[in-house]
Amino acid sequence: METLFALTNGYMGIRGTFDEGTPAFQKGTLINGFHETWPIVYAESAYGYARVGQTIVNAPDGTLIRLYVDDEPFNLSQATLINFDRSLDTRTGILTRDVIWEMGSGKRVRIHSRRLVSLEHRHVAAISYEVTLLNADAPIVISSELVYQEETRPVEGDQRGSRAFAERVLLPKELLASGAKAILTAMTRTSRMTLACGMTHLIENDNSSSYDVKNLSRNERGRVVVSVQGTAGQRLCLTKVLTYHTSTSASLGELAEQADWSLDRALSLGFEGLAVSQQVCLNKFWDRADIEVRGDDEIQQVMRFNLFHIYQASARADGMGLPAKGLTGQGYEGQYFWDTEIYVLPFLTYTSPHMARNLLLFRYRMLDAARRRAREVNQQGALFPWRTINGEEASAYYAAGTAQYHIDADISYALMKYVEVIGDRQFLYQEGAEILIETARMWRSLGFYSSRVNDQFCINGVTGPDEYNTVVNNNAFTNLMARENLWAAAKTLQEIRDRNPERFTQLIHETKLAATEIDEWQAAGDRMFVPYDESVGIHLQDDEFLSKKPWDFANTPPEKYPLLLNFHPLVIYRHNVIKQADIVLAMFLLGSQFSLDQKRRNFDYYDPLTTGDSSLSVSIQSILAMELGYRDKAIEYLRYALWMDLADVHTNVDQGCHIASMGGTWMAVVYGIAGMREEDGRISFHPRLGQRIEGLRFHLTIQGQLLTVDIEGRKEQTTYLLREGSGLTIRHMHDELTLEPGKTVSLDFNFQEIH
Amino acid sequence: METLFALTNGYMGIRGTFDEGTPAFQKGTLINGFHETWPIVYAESAYGYARVGQTIVNAPDGTLIRLYVDDEPFNLSQATLINFDRSLDTRTGILTRDVIWEMGSGKRVRIHSRRLVSLEHRHVAAISYEVTLLNADAPIVISSELVYQEETRPVEGDQRGSRAFAERVLLPKELLASGAKAILTAMTRTSRMTLACGMTHLIENDNSSSYDVKNLSRNERGRVVVSVQGTAGQRLCLTKVLTYHTSTSASLGELAEQADWSLDRALSLGFEGLAVSQQVCLNKFWDRADIEVRGDDEIQQVMRFNLFHIYQASARADGMGLPAKGLTGQGYEGQYFWDTEIYVLPFLTYTSPHMARNLLLFRYRMLDAARRRAREVNQQGALFPWRTINGEEASAYYAAGTAQYHIDADISYALMKYVEVIGDRQFLYQEGAEILIETARMWRSLGFYSSRVNDQFCINGVTGPDEYNTVVNNNAFTNLMARENLWAAAKTLQEIRDRNPERFTQLIHETKLAATEIDEWQAAGDRMFVPYDESVGIHLQDDEFLSKKPWDFANTPPEKYPLLLNFHPLVIYRHNVIKQADIVLAMFLLGSQFSLDQKRRNFDYYDPLTTGDSSLSVSIQSILAMELGYRDKAIEYLRYALWMDLADVHTNVDQGCHIASMGGTWMAVVYGIAGMREEDGRISFHPRLGQRIEGLRFHLTIQGQLLTVDIEGRKEQTTYLLREGSGLTIRHMHDELTLEPGKTVSLDFNFQEIH
Repeated sequence: METLFALTNGYMGIRGTFDEGTPAFQKGTLINGFHETWPIVYAESAYGYARVGQTIVNAPDGTLIRLYVDDEPFNLSQATLINFDRSLDTRTGILTRDVIWEMGSGKRVRIHSRRLVSLEHRHVAAISYEVTLLNADAPIVISSELVYQEETRPVEGDQRGSRAFAERVLLPKELLASGAKAILTAMTRTSRMTLACGMTHLIENDNSSSYDVKNLSRNERGRVVVSVQGTAGQRLCLTKVLTYHTSTSASLGELAEQADWSLDRALSLGFEGLAVSQQVCLNKFWDRADIEVRGDDEIQQVMRFNLFHIYQASARADGMGLPAKGLTGQGYEGQYFWDTEIYVLPFLTYTSPHMARNLLLFRYRMLDAARRRAREVNQQGALFPWRTINGEEASAYYAAGTAQYHIDADISYALMKYVEVIGDRQFLYQEGAEILIETARMWRSLGFYSSRVNDQFCINGVTGPDEYNTVVNNNAFTNLMARENLWAAAKTLQEIRDRNPERFTQLIHETKLAATEIDEWQAAGDRMFVPYDESVGIHLQDDEFLSKKPWDFANTPPEKYPLLLNFHPLVIYRHNVIKQADIVLAMFLLGSQFSLDQKRRNFDYYDPLTTGDSSLSVSIQSILAMELGYRDKAIEYLRYALWMDLADVHTNVDQGCHIASMGGTWMAVVYGIAGMREEDGRISFHPRLGQRIEGLRFHLTIQGQLLTVDIEGRKEQTTYLLREGSGLTIRHMHDELTLEPGKTVSLDFNFQEIH
Repeated sequence: METLFALTNGYMGIRGTFDEGTPAFQKGTLINGFHETWPIVYAESAYGYARVGQTIVNAPDGTLIRLYVDDEPFNLSQATLINFDRSLDTRTGILTRDVIWEMGSGKRVRIHSRRLVSLEHRHVAAISYEVTLLNADAPIVISSELVYQEETRPVEGDQRGSRAFAERVLLPKELLASGAKAILTAMTRTSRMTLACGMTHLIENDNSSSYDVKNLSRNERGRVVVSVQGTAGQRLCLTKVLTYHTSTSASLGELAEQADWSLDRALSLGFEGLAVSQQVCLNKFWDRADIEVRGDDEIQQVMRFNLFHIYQASARADGMGLPAKGLTGQGYEGQYFWDTEIYVLPFLTYTSPHMARNLLLFRYRMLDAARRRAREVNQQGALFPWRTINGEEASAYYAAGTAQYHIDADISYALMKYVEVIGDRQFLYQEGAEILIETARMWRSLGFYSSRVNDQFCINGVTGPDEYNTVVNNNAFTNLMARENLWAAAKTLQEIRDRNPERFTQLIHETKLAATEIDEWQAAGDRMFVPYDESVGIHLQDDEFLSKKPWDFANTPPEKYPLLLNFHPLVIYRHNVIKQADIVLAMFLLGSQFSLDQKRRNFDYYDPLTTGDSSLSVSIQSILAMELGYRDKAIEYLRYALWMDLADVHTNVDQGCHIASMGGTWMAVVYGIAGMREEDGRISFHPRLGQRIEGLRFHLTIQGQLLTVDIEGRKEQTTYLLREGSGLTIRHMHDELTLEPGKTVSLDFNFQEIH
């Protein structure tokens, strides 16, 4: 519940713990990128291992509001509750709790609290805490606090789990307190990041009785106490405003000033003012990003829950990355993975292009660190970190970390997709070109022309997305994506040379681009080896995949999944078993490079070997199953993906929401059910909505135009409406279709047809 | 020098630090198996990883003897030395130092010290420290101490390096002091091993002046101070006796008593008495184990140095293992590896069979832990630890640790070789059978019949001896050795069934041996897949070896070796480059399974790819080069192996002697130059001594008989003499030869001939 009810805006996140602080599983106030570094210690070390561990740090908790009535503390876990209700409204972005507490004395107290993390004001969160005495008079005391938290706890058993620190990480510096305000400043021990956070309050009392406010802040703890002699029916309302500012360079004094201003400004807006701007942001979001599901309220709800969380995770990330769990929990240590580029960027590209662009820019800024990392592992160009906060590789297990060189191709792929859909050639020619040059160089230096396979270009010793087969030769996904990367680099650089010679000259200067490089990338791409087995008629996940020992699925009971928590890596690696759809993902991302027949044979072979132990798997399996006409299977996989967090399918939602899986559900609907594909910026649809869902309606932003697609399942009809824009050509099924703004076009489709 | 001059007896070892304690690089008093345990922490952990780190602990230093003349301390690094000489006599086992110190006052003092670690009295070491005033009178004070040492220091950059502890490991308990004696007891913090160590003294003064002895031991420090008013020409002689007792179970009190008795007994023998028994042990050793090299004093000396160190390392290991560095340094944390079975047991089997048997028994006692470990990695039977002290797997890097399943086959191989050469069927039927059953079971469950290669038996996901190619499929060395293991188990069990039905029944009971198992082992062995490439005409080190990228040897400067310290593992793994002879080792161990032509093709292919970054490589390369007629190369490799420690070829002798490499030099001479091979207990020789060495003479114990082989290089003649025994049949070149005791037989050979 703490994860599911977490509120974030992409910059800061507050887990859905109770205002009173208990009971709590794991409190969390997380600031994107606010992290501690630590030297990764290896029991047996080796050259080139990642050295800088990075872990998001829990900032002081400002949600604490302790309530005393008749001097009795309100303690949720022991109180007699006449009513208890908590709800998160994805339209308003407000988390509400409504409680009626019956005291031992028979007195009843209603506590109504609302919480928001502002989507408009990046550094601001607010709580409205209303106490009403229902049937008797009583003195009321509210103690509102801002306190340092317990620090990161170790999570056992998860390869990407977080880590305990031996010493306190967040070192308190100053406490500034006056009136109803308190500001704390602090610094992380090793990474030397600075933090200022603060709270301030507004007290409203709906009768005339006087109240008393004391600022009892001291040492490391901000504390403001409100006392009032309450009477029956009286409502006491406390508005608490919180702010957080962090920096890698700004001084504590500077940050404290910023915090002070934020508090004053936010308090002047009041909770209602903040709620209004919250609503404005969300209205805009839903208008362009909603998916309406008609005829199935459950799917509708979970779909919107997922979209809400992706939005929350990215809305104000601005120049930062997207942690794998958003800011809903400390899972994966608050680090950034390929999840962003492959699972979240499609959604953002089609609904909030500027956010997609921000995230790509964030990678661009990491390029220098990636260049250094490439040198460390003996490559040219740039190798992006498999997991990171500050740009340095933080993976302490190279086989499922550094070895995932495909991260370079994933970033390039997302970049090209963004450019295709949005048409942002300015970005491509500037930042994009540099990313493409350096990633192409990495691939060129990593692989080689092997005489063993007719001088095709081979890439050895890498790990694909499937972490149950590591450090393999010619992982098909990697080779295909590397080819795409090499081609994209060659094509883009040729385009810049032809269309923007000035920029081309600049690039030669900036990146020391040699005359032969473009041709070398093209050649390496053209001659890329893609492992294929003629006898079985399938692409090989890697050279050796068919040589592995079959996994004994029949004798693997459910409690032995996920396999990574129950078998030594060597046991897993030597078997024909897959953590997440690997070739299947390639067949989705690069769909036009496979025939339908080939897709079917690959899917039929690999799908039964796929455990889905990764939350990134089922959404992609759903898309391919849908394309291949395995409708029931597609819907089953989609449901797994949809409920990943709400139903805690992988029993680890306590660590945070699976943001990538949520992005995957959007893809499973848009690419799976609506059958959308894009090629060179041309969008096509092959709707496949059956009778189980009445209708689907969603919106896409394509080259600045806003398209609404509405699919009727029973009628097997799709209606297209260009809500904004000047005209857009798409394909429906096999037909080209030019849409004019404001005019709906309805066309039939055949659910059974396989394309 | 501290390593090279280290004295050990296999139970305890004292590095060759100076008596006065300074200057010192790394002091060390190491007791075999006396270790601390610690939880191995992984930055990213996974199921089944080794959990118990094990590190040998430095015991209190008893070598300290501080000398003061005229109240001036004798400080080696600052003193004016008229003479300085240190020598280790491998005949007597005594380390001698002779120094003449000229003091600022012009007074000259001769200090003559001798040190031994008793080969006869396992718990005893002794120092004789003689001070002679050469030209003037002066008061002399000698302070003799027994003190706790600095604890294990980290060694950076070596995968198998040792580790620092955050807290003190060896916790002092009691100090018992009286007369000239002091005994300390201590316990390791986590492993709870107990230690008692002590010193006592005898003072001899060759004129009648009186001396004074004070026992100043207190707290954690034993200290006995001798004062005398010396006169010119006077010699003061201090005999210091040391003892060490350790245990996993005995109480400190018990150990202290044992230490007390040891001290009294040793002191009653005196240094000279101990020196006599030392000589007796070494006479016996050299009589049966010496290799005489005629015509090259350098090779002679280094050869004997190596043999002496192997003997020291194993002499009184008794029920313990053989650390990779013996007890000459803390490298590899004092742990036991396959080094013992493959590199040292041949020498011991042929020269000190009871030591070989002890070491095999040591593995037998580890069987229960190995059974548990097999379960952890999902296998049946037993999987011996790749590195260990206490029987638990201690490898924190599975790719070059746990994945080296070949350890099981190495142990079985050494066992069968011991049985063949010694004829010890009692051992085979008792302990040996159990080892064979459990290791065969492990192989049977690890591999599988693969339809991809005609239903041959494949073993995937293992690492062979070559740690530059890890987690591969069908490592040829592993498969061949596993086959040998499976065959040996099947054959032995059939033999027991036929010849000793009672024992067979017992084994069925003890090991739950199923009726079908023996046939299954035989079948798995018979159908073992051995990767071979028809096009190149070579055995493949593993399935994928030929698919790797060529290593750019031409552009790898010398300072980039060893590669493991200069390249990320992934970089190394994806290239055609070898750390140590892998297939070449298989071709030596299982020579009869390859044709000469095959050996040549394999050697010619793999040898240029072999960096020799492992000290275990060159000796084996030498043997094969010799067999193939590459005489110069063979001698070059032999010289590398011989001088590994004395010339510090790998620049890491500071961490201890390479005991396995030393064993390898014995093999390179006996198997390489003398061309010895054994098959089913029948020994053959194909001498290949050229003109560079005049003659070679060595001794072998074969089935209780003692054979001396003398090879004349110039005459191309070999003389065999059965010094003990009743008659032995061997082969010389292509001829069978029956030797009678006491009669020499001289036969010619042709140096140029290739067999």
